[in-house]
Amino acid sequence: MHSIVTLLTDFGLQDSYVGQVKGAILAVDRRIQVVDLCHAVPPQNVLSGAFELRRGVEPFPEGTVHVAVVDPGVGTDRRIVAVRANGHYFVAPDNGLLSWILADLPVDAVVEVSDPKYWRREVSATFHGRDIMGPVGAHLATGEPLHQFGPEIDAADLRLLDERVLESQADIGRASVSVLHVDRFGNVVLSVRGPAPRWSRASVRTGAHAHVAQVVRCYGEAPVGQLVLLVGSSGYWELAVVGGAAAELLEVQPGDLLDLEEMRG
Amino acid sequence: MHSIVTLLTDFGLQDSYVGQVKGAILAVDRRIQVVDLCHAVPPQNVLSGAFELRRGVEPFPEGTVHVAVVDPGVGTDRRIVAVRANGHYFVAPDNGLLSWILADLPVDAVVEVSDPKYWRREVSATFHGRDIMGPVGAHLATGEPLHQFGPEIDAADLRLLDERVLESQADIGRASVSVLHVDRFGNVVLSVRGPAPRWSRASVRTGAHAHVAQVVRCYGEAPVGQLVLLVGSSGYWELAVVGGAAAELLEVQPGDLLDLEEMRG
Amino acid sequence: MHSIVTLLTDFGLQDSYVGQVKGAILAVDRRIQVVDLCHAVPPQNVLSGAFELRRGVEPFPEGTVHVAVVDPGVGTDRRIVAVRANGHYFVAPDNGLLSWILADLPVDAVVEVSDPKYWRREVSATFHGRDIMGPVGAHLATGEPLHQFGPEIDAADLRLLDERVLESQADIGRASVSVLHVDRFGNVVLSVRGPAPRWSRASVRTGAHAHVAQVVRCYGEAPVGQLVLLVGSSGYWELAVVGGAAAELLEVQPGDLLDLEEMRG
Repeated sequence: MHSIVTLLTDFGLQDSYVGQVKGAILAVDRRIQVVDLCHAVPPQNVLSGAFELRRGVEPFPEGTVHVAVVDPGVGTDRRIVAVRANGHYFVAPDNGLLSWILADLPVDAVVEVSDPKYWRREVSATFHGRDIMGPVGAHLATGEPLHQFGPEIDAADLRLLDERVLESQADIGRASVSVLHVDRFGNVVLSVRGPAPRWSRASVRTGAHAHVAQVVRCYGEAPVGQLVLLVGSSGYWELAVVGGAAAELLEVQPGDLLDLEEMRG
Repeated sequence: MHSIVTLLTDFGLQDSYVGQVKGAILAVDRRIQVVDLCHAVPPQNVLSGAFELRRGVEPFPEGTVHVAVVDPGVGTDRRIVAVRANGHYFVAPDNGLLSWILADLPVDAVVEVSDPKYWRREVSATFHGRDIMGPVGAHLATGEPLHQFGPEIDAADLRLLDERVLESQADIGRASVSVLHVDRFGNVVLSVRGPAPRWSRASVRTGAHAHVAQVVRCYGEAPVGQLVLLVGSSGYWELAVVGGAAAELLEVQPGDLLDLEEMRG
Repeated sequence: MHSIVTLLTDFGLQDSYVGQVKGAILAVDRRIQVVDLCHAVPPQNVLSGAFELRRGVEPFPEGTVHVAVVDPGVGTDRRIVAVRANGHYFVAPDNGLLSWILADLPVDAVVEVSDPKYWRREVSATFHGRDIMGPVGAHLATGEPLHQFGPEIDAADLRLLDERVLESQADIGRASVSVLHVDRFGNVVLSVRGPAPRWSRASVRTGAHAHVAQVVRCYGEAPVGQLVLLVGSSGYWELAVVGGAAAELLEVQPGDLLDLEEMRG
């Protein structure tokens, strides 16, 4: 069989939380391939998790089940949902974490996860990744049909992140953007898909502070230490510091808002 | 077959040490499911490893083999043992790492790991996780009976951590406790199982320094920056700083001792 | 089947890059055992990756495929190669990353990876680990013969790191060495294989700065805070600070050069 279940969480690897979710999955069927997609989503940062999930699932084969747990509302009445889209399955809290998946992929069906038959026998108040979402993903991977897990609901009723945060439009000479992601190197991915603006320099305003970025095509065009604006490998605008960390310079994290403006003269 | 072997170590993920243990396991049988339980145990901190092992193994199915390597005594004459308890198997140095497992689970049998037939052909002086414990765990996972690995020994002869470190009792108005664990967020897990004390405030003394903690039921009850005492999701008392890291404020790590005392008036 | 593919990269675990490579591998065959060898190679540090690869592959069984991606030249015309050596397979950019493998293991055959039939349908400019090397490793693991992936080339034509960086010879009373690796504890692995020099103290010169190291057989011989020189568990000379981090004290990273000299009197 060898079904695949991927995990994306904000648990980090400091504790055994990810290992515990894997235990709960393998307790359903020990033949499942469990794959780590990412566990370094900033704690409770739904926007960052949604972005990482969208670009992470691409290479996996049809039939893969993706369990995504960035869940600040655990313990409240937020729903858990299971979605089939483009031949992949997704299990996640209904809190916007699937925003990009729902925007970009054709959705076949959505159910609310409500039948406790597929959960661990004891469900804690704070660890639904282990007690509900992991086991539900495992049962999906073993071939249990989607409609078994709970009543069908309308995809249009799912919670989405604010559209302006997900994708911004650049105007002539200016753009109000959000930070989607900060990568390992401190590069700051912005909510504008390419192409790059035809500016030579941009002012970058974050709250009270302003910085000047040089608009380049690749890192090598600017000297070490220079803040640059370019289209990154993900196809989005990125702010980077050559040989440094733009996120530290700008003191931003996913979800923060920035104003970019062309500088002339 | 698809037997499961979990790994808990203090190796970190900076080097290839964990990968090497997996190689040694798969060299025994490449069908084994190897699962990371946790590799971020503070170096040589047996207490922290013992705590993480205890709460980590819970969700795994019967028959799982848990290999635990926090082994400051490697190269000395400390024993390596294999234990069957509650349908799970454990392979670890006999240094207290199994303290909670032995205290909480019914033990079926214990052997000293001594037959080199199940080890890697060459055994280094400093890497018994790869050369002995990993391969022994793999052979256990393939169904080799426990008594094949060495002579049976009495569970009562195994080394345990000091009982007062493992679990403290709160007295009226005061408690001398140890730090069991520091999690990703810097929350400090203490050696007292709930319920929470019926205090409104507690003094927290660490060596020369004293702090004041507010006793709460959940983080939301106190303002950002406030030190709080509550019962955490693991069922133990925890010290936390709302929006901060209690371990940094208190400058403590697993094994440290604290004195808590009710503050009145 | 259960073939094994290991991954060694400089991607870190901050993003989903490693997960994406695994997706591309499992899209070829979902039965493959994918094992993390190490993802914490310092960004673009080919020397450090080459060292970690060499010592990491040892315990894996014959037939294992090792995919190694430390690839500062991605997007240039550097070649990708596949190598069979000592019963293991290696897929990597031809940039020196296989230097130790080629130096230490008997090489059976080398091909240039050029047939796009085995790649992902769309190949990005910057992510050949996911789009080429991962899938090629997966096809090798499923039993596709090496010569299918491209034309055979001469092992002598492969790029190697400078021999003096890989392994230095100690002269009488002095040694010019390179830093091969910095481990989790900040220990600095040097390019000299044991035995230890018969010195009592050594001066350690890094650019403008000089330090004094005590030559010891094990950490316990020197007081906390002391810089020591010893033969580490990998069989190489190491600089360590007892209870501290030598790499921080010396401000060195893999690839840096050091001059050691015996101190008398």
